[in-house]
Amino acid sequence: MTYNRTMQDSIFTKIIKGEIPCQKIYEDEKTLAFLDIYPTQPGHTLVIPKTQVEFLWDLSDEDYQAVMDTVKKVGRHLREVLNVPYVGVKVIGTDVPHVHVHLVPFHTAAGYYAQPDTNGEPDIAALDAMAKTLAF
Amino acid sequence: MTYNRTMQDSIFTKIIKGEIPCQKIYEDEKTLAFLDIYPTQPGHTLVIPKTQVEFLWDLSDEDYQAVMDTVKKVGRHLREVLNVPYVGVKVIGTDVPHVHVHLVPFHTAAGYYAQPDTNGEPDIAALDAMAKTLAF
Repeated sequence: MTYNRTMQDSIFTKIIKGEIPCQKIYEDEKTLAFLDIYPTQPGHTLVIPKTQVEFLWDLSDEDYQAVMDTVKKVGRHLREVLNVPYVGVKVIGTDVPHVHVHLVPFHTAAGYYAQPDTNGEPDIAALDAMAKTLAF
Repeated sequence: MTYNRTMQDSIFTKIIKGEIPCQKIYEDEKTLAFLDIYPTQPGHTLVIPKTQVEFLWDLSDEDYQAVMDTVKKVGRHLREVLNVPYVGVKVIGTDVPHVHVHLVPFHTAAGYYAQPDTNGEPDIAALDAMAKTLAF
């Protein structure tokens, strides 16, 4: 993993380093995909570069391509395994300062636009079960 | 341009063929970027493959990479030229059956989530002026 050690570790860098657990779906040399702990839909997944960079547009060309290759791989996989018509993509970037691409499996447009309910604790049992279904 | 001629031309294929006008921002061999006629934010741009394929996940690896390369190029360009902190990405896919990646320049998360006002005619004068600002 490479990241700028003068920056504070983001929550995602802590996940990459194994300091915080996650429900991992896929991992390769440059990227990691894991379940969003506050899913807006079942199977809601985040794809991140292992490099800690705040914005998609500031990734190196190599890291950008690695992220988009993982997005493709995981997006196709979610659609197939969950048997949903749509897997949407969202990149917003106003919360965690570490690039993350949301992959949202959904059935109707309202599902794509659904907002997470971040009150209460994450449902770890449900996340663990979904990760077993989805892990490569 | 290649597309499946057994399919009806999508509105975007008609734009690619020049049968419907657009406010073009960028074009290369495999992709086209142009302004959304019902922008949710100033500079709201669509990136499409010239191949008519309904879903992002069904693009050939080559076309997927071409689309994502144009997304990167145009996303960086929008941020720089419009001097906005964020350029969000959205892929939904429930409306026009031809892959299109939304690039949404915005200042706050509410801007990212803003919905288009599709009542009334598009503001062509404003779109033309924005295209002059943004065209590569």
